[in-house]
Amino acid sequence: MTEEKKDNIVFIGSKPLMAYVNAVQMQFKEGQEKVQISARGKNMNAAIDVEQIITQRFMKDEVETESIKTGSEEFNKKDKDGKETDKKTKVSTLDIILKKK
Amino acid sequence: MTEEKKDNIVFIGSKPLMAYVNAVQMQFKEGQEKVQISARGKNMNAAIDVEQIITQRFMKDEVETESIKTGSEEFNKKDKDGKETDKKTKVSTLDIILKKK
Repeated sequence: MTEEKKDNIVFIGSKPLMAYVNAVQMQFKEGQEKVQISARGKNMNAAIDVEQIITQRFMKDEVETESIKTGSEEFNKKDKDGKETDKKTKVSTLDIILKKK
Repeated sequence: MTEEKKDNIVFIGSKPLMAYVNAVQMQFKEGQEKVQISARGKNMNAAIDVEQIITQRFMKDEVETESIKTGSEEFNKKDKDGKETDKKTKVSTLDIILKKK
């Protein structure tokens, strides 16, 4: 078992949607019972799209949504040079747990 | 009681975030026990932002999240002239129910 296989969290970034759909499918096919889809800010849409594609189409009979959790993360704003400032800002977060039926 | 007050669903569109935060607050202040935040596609991010701002900041002591539900809606694609075609396409949907503590 490689390092990758142990990690059952798929972080949603700016790749095409299907990259994440494939990543989730791969995790289940490699034997994971649960896979977490995590996203923050603008990527939360895509996390829900991935969840819907997996549970309503690609793995409809095998996988269902166990839980959906929202939250907020605080971080230090960066200035125009990309350097951290003392100003705090918040971003919303989304964690969806899928499980084998 | 006006028509508006009866309706406890806030649909998230493309207005500034605070318009929806205010709409949700208004509903609770007018006596609603529950308020539903609904969004589809690209507006789902904003729905989660509104939920977080209400439950973690503006109404932290009064309101909490009761449920978060995702889904898909199918509709007919429009052609370049804006006319409905026979081609189906899907969009993800998000419904968040907030309730008074």
